[in-house]
Amino acid sequence: MKIEAEWMRGGTSKCWVFESAQLGAASAGPDVLLPRLFGSPDSRQIDGVGGATSTTSKAVILDRPTGGDVDVEFTFAQVGIEEATVDWGSNCGNCSAVVGLYAIEKGWVVPTGDVTRIVTRNTNTGQIIVQEVSTPSGALPIVPQAEMPGVPFPGYRVGLGFRDPAGKTTGALLPTGSPVDTLTAAGASWTVSMVDAGAPLVILRAEDLGLDPELHEDWSDAVVPHLAVLDAIRREAAVRMGMARTPEEAARAVPKLAVVAPPASSDADSDLSVLMLSMGKPHPALAITGSIALTLAARTPGTLPSVAVRATPGATLRLRTPAGVIDTWSEERNGSPLIGVDRTARTIASTVIHLPEVLGSAVDASFAGATQ
Amino acid sequence: MKIEAEWMRGGTSKCWVFESAQLGAASAGPDVLLPRLFGSPDSRQIDGVGGATSTTSKAVILDRPTGGDVDVEFTFAQVGIEEATVDWGSNCGNCSAVVGLYAIEKGWVVPTGDVTRIVTRNTNTGQIIVQEVSTPSGALPIVPQAEMPGVPFPGYRVGLGFRDPAGKTTGALLPTGSPVDTLTAAGASWTVSMVDAGAPLVILRAEDLGLDPELHEDWSDAVVPHLAVLDAIRREAAVRMGMARTPEEAARAVPKLAVVAPPASSDADSDLSVLMLSMGKPHPALAITGSIALTLAARTPGTLPSVAVRATPGATLRLRTPAGVIDTWSEERNGSPLIGVDRTARTIASTVIHLPEVLGSAVDASFAGATQ
Repeated sequence: MKIEAEWMRGGTSKCWVFESAQLGAASAGPDVLLPRLFGSPDSRQIDGVGGATSTTSKAVILDRPTGGDVDVEFTFAQVGIEEATVDWGSNCGNCSAVVGLYAIEKGWVVPTGDVTRIVTRNTNTGQIIVQEVSTPSGALPIVPQAEMPGVPFPGYRVGLGFRDPAGKTTGALLPTGSPVDTLTAAGASWTVSMVDAGAPLVILRAEDLGLDPELHEDWSDAVVPHLAVLDAIRREAAVRMGMARTPEEAARAVPKLAVVAPPASSDADSDLSVLMLSMGKPHPALAITGSIALTLAARTPGTLPSVAVRATPGATLRLRTPAGVIDTWSEERNGSPLIGVDRTARTIASTVIHLPEVLGSAVDASFAGATQ
Repeated sequence: MKIEAEWMRGGTSKCWVFESAQLGAASAGPDVLLPRLFGSPDSRQIDGVGGATSTTSKAVILDRPTGGDVDVEFTFAQVGIEEATVDWGSNCGNCSAVVGLYAIEKGWVVPTGDVTRIVTRNTNTGQIIVQEVSTPSGALPIVPQAEMPGVPFPGYRVGLGFRDPAGKTTGALLPTGSPVDTLTAAGASWTVSMVDAGAPLVILRAEDLGLDPELHEDWSDAVVPHLAVLDAIRREAAVRMGMARTPEEAARAVPKLAVVAPPASSDADSDLSVLMLSMGKPHPALAITGSIALTLAARTPGTLPSVAVRATPGATLRLRTPAGVIDTWSEERNGSPLIGVDRTARTIASTVIHLPEVLGSAVDASFAGATQ
């Protein structure tokens, strides 16, 4: 059996893009099929298309709904590496960025004007993401030329606008009803902002951790001694936001946590200094969902980012991250807020994946991996 | 521009297979083209087809010579990851294993009988490798079913027979003229065998390092305290084999080094216990070229493997490695020795790689990589 797929870079991830009819033609469901296509279980994914890291073991499955204003529905799949599993529990902002480009490249959406808008819906979260792909004079340029931090080669610019993202997890932008709260964690008292937009996020002041606002370039290293304390704060916040009954029950991936400060006095190119933590580690740039939450928080009076931000932000908010400045944007569209961030995307290869085995057979579950 | 390629697993590597005419159609030569296709320079190869590890950043370029007895010529390319470079200096045994299968799948060679022989020539080394692909009743099975250590999924069985491999680097199977020699390294005296077949190899007795022949499963860990001494032995051997003027000038990749002992008394399934070192680290299985050298050494009276081996080996020699038993075989064919090892191979995907940029432009050479 052979299955068509496009291999695309979305932001700083590599994503395998399938049309659901193609996957549906297989005898096995996607929970079995995707791990086998990716070569899982195997720490090296040596017999499949997976890249053996969390950012390269990702799939997106596309559907074209009939009727309504959604052009493309997409489902994100985080494919296990050492286990033959699929996690359907969240969306990936980076892989989201390939969906609009795919629709244009396949002729699903005809480019019009200098920016082509594709309305997409992520089925994992229900979030509408309006994608804006640069199409100067109504066409994709032959040579993509948009750059972004963290990717050494250019791609096509894609704006990802999250429609009305507040409260999707907890029901409110400010789950506690307050723009700042005081938490007790690790035996100390902490001032935090807790917001829910794109994803739930806990925000702290850099100064409260002893991080120097003038030395943002040092934060990724300087935060390391505080990681255990920050996880305790994050878990306590999960309880306060109604996402867990006890700190111990808090999920590892959400809420995320960000540290903010005013930009360094020498930094005229950003509005806010940020360090985000993801899965317990300093993020080199920004998780897209976290950047949506930061952006709405910066526009919400009384939150820590709204105090730290250089001035009342305009349509664009410039966030200083370890990898460089990342812009987010906000607009009102048909009465709904659209909070967005730009990425680049590109098709790496058009492929036909070979799937030889009768699915469900022949995998030695005891295989320990890690050979070369 | 778009370039066709097959993505194939060969043994425990993933290899990108190009036909030279396809690559030749690009304006840039392969030293520029391959790194860009792979996404280099970038520690994550996030914008290309490379897998960001040494065993997944490999290419094979195929040619069909006219006349002569060689069906396919192939050139191996180790594509740099953090540097936009290509190393053409050696062959890769694992990627060699895809060449015969490719020739059958593309119709270059028509399968005949239960085993189809494809004569290939590696241009990096000049080595003829006769490939034997299992084709029961003259056809590739629809579902490949051959297993090998280190790969959790089945593939097609491919025998790789190295024709007359002795002395390709130094001019002789025993470069010093003797099956055993005594070296001084790290202030001690060591008994070694030095052989050149497939690749130059230095062989030691496990006992001389204090490794227990009855506990082969512990060798990978137990050898770690000896790695510096073993590298000193390896470098001294390079001088004795005429490959370097001084130990300091010895290459890092060759000669390789292997430790041998008789099989454990409880091990009826192997003829020789082996641990190979590659690039200074214990290899989980065997480098193919090293296994060719070991096999010829085991058949050469007076060498350390010939003394340690369970009995005079027959056509098959069973080598106990950390990943399991690997068989090698030897036969006489038209007056030339053919020393071989089996691997499995499989086509993962048929692809068309997109190459958007004007080559040679647009890459920021200062990019530091390592973001996600």
